[in-house]
Amino acid sequence: MKALKDRIIRDGKCFEGGILKVDNFINHQMDPILMKSMAVEFVRRFASTKINKILTIEASGIAPAIMVGYLLELPVVFAKKKKPSTMENMLTTTVYSFTKDRTYDVCVSKDYLCPGDKVLFIDDFLANGNAAKGIIDLVQKAEAELVGMGFLIEKSFQHGGDYLRAQGIHVESLAIIESLENCQIKIKD
Amino acid sequence: MKALKDRIIRDGKCFEGGILKVDNFINHQMDPILMKSMAVEFVRRFASTKINKILTIEASGIAPAIMVGYLLELPVVFAKKKKPSTMENMLTTTVYSFTKDRTYDVCVSKDYLCPGDKVLFIDDFLANGNAAKGIIDLVQKAEAELVGMGFLIEKSFQHGGDYLRAQGIHVESLAIIESLENCQIKIKD
Repeated sequence: MKALKDRIIRDGKCFEGGILKVDNFINHQMDPILMKSMAVEFVRRFASTKINKILTIEASGIAPAIMVGYLLELPVVFAKKKKPSTMENMLTTTVYSFTKDRTYDVCVSKDYLCPGDKVLFIDDFLANGNAAKGIIDLVQKAEAELVGMGFLIEKSFQHGGDYLRAQGIHVESLAIIESLENCQIKIKD
Repeated sequence: MKALKDRIIRDGKCFEGGILKVDNFINHQMDPILMKSMAVEFVRRFASTKINKILTIEASGIAPAIMVGYLLELPVVFAKKKKPSTMENMLTTTVYSFTKDRTYDVCVSKDYLCPGDKVLFIDDFLANGNAAKGIIDLVQKAEAELVGMGFLIEKSFQHGGDYLRAQGIHVESLAIIESLENCQIKIKD
């Protein structure tokens, strides 16, 4: 998606260890107009997919997910990164964060991720795919069906996308970063 | 706002200690159509206010804030609840959570909350106002101007709204809960 690629080149910042910061328009400050355009692109790419629920993880996934849900007129569920004290009836999985070198729990209520749900997962980043694997686990535990996964930015050199596609999952990424070597952002055409 | 009040009566759940759970349409599962309608209502209520930036706190504030930002075509910044390791140039404040009986840090980058910014803060809940006080502190530290605070739901019996209005802040709440005594949801007309 050209508008996103152009924005990454303009405002993305590269750090050692394959880190791409897009705090200017996605992860801290958000550009709602671009967010809506990206949601439209997801609607187009998943046009032939039957979906009844959008799923994401807090916090940076919420903005793109709510825009997709708004366009498709579907409920949006955000999985939480800690088990809230007032929540019962939870499905939980553990995710290892490569960036932060620690594990965290991700949970979702059975009330909102239900057997038979046709779930489109939307998130900001796909890197090594650990968060995505956690989502696959949650969707399976809920006896729901994962019909697609859409990411704003995929870092293909970290191979999470390879894994997901090898599982037969319909993965769409709006910008694919092939390399951040020498802090040069190389985006797939 | 009638649609929100009706939805709270229909789907809100009351727990001991003055807790109102709206996990069905705001805090875990989100209704994007209602979210957009609430954003329209904020636009109307702050129609005569000059705003150049929307500010919120992760995670439940992001959805209403991005919708307001989308309608007004303004950038949306979400304050973070922990200091990210890759962030420099941060403003930080400490907030006491009454519900969870612990403090947490809220931070925002000086790159995105800047001197002279005219900031509309949007969040899901206003209860005792501790998070809002943290936001006031951050906005002051940034030498920005807080031009208004909009909340989806205010629990007036916890008096955060009284405090904010006494400071001369323009506060708008789309539904005001007067009491949750005996687990009866009483909403202001």
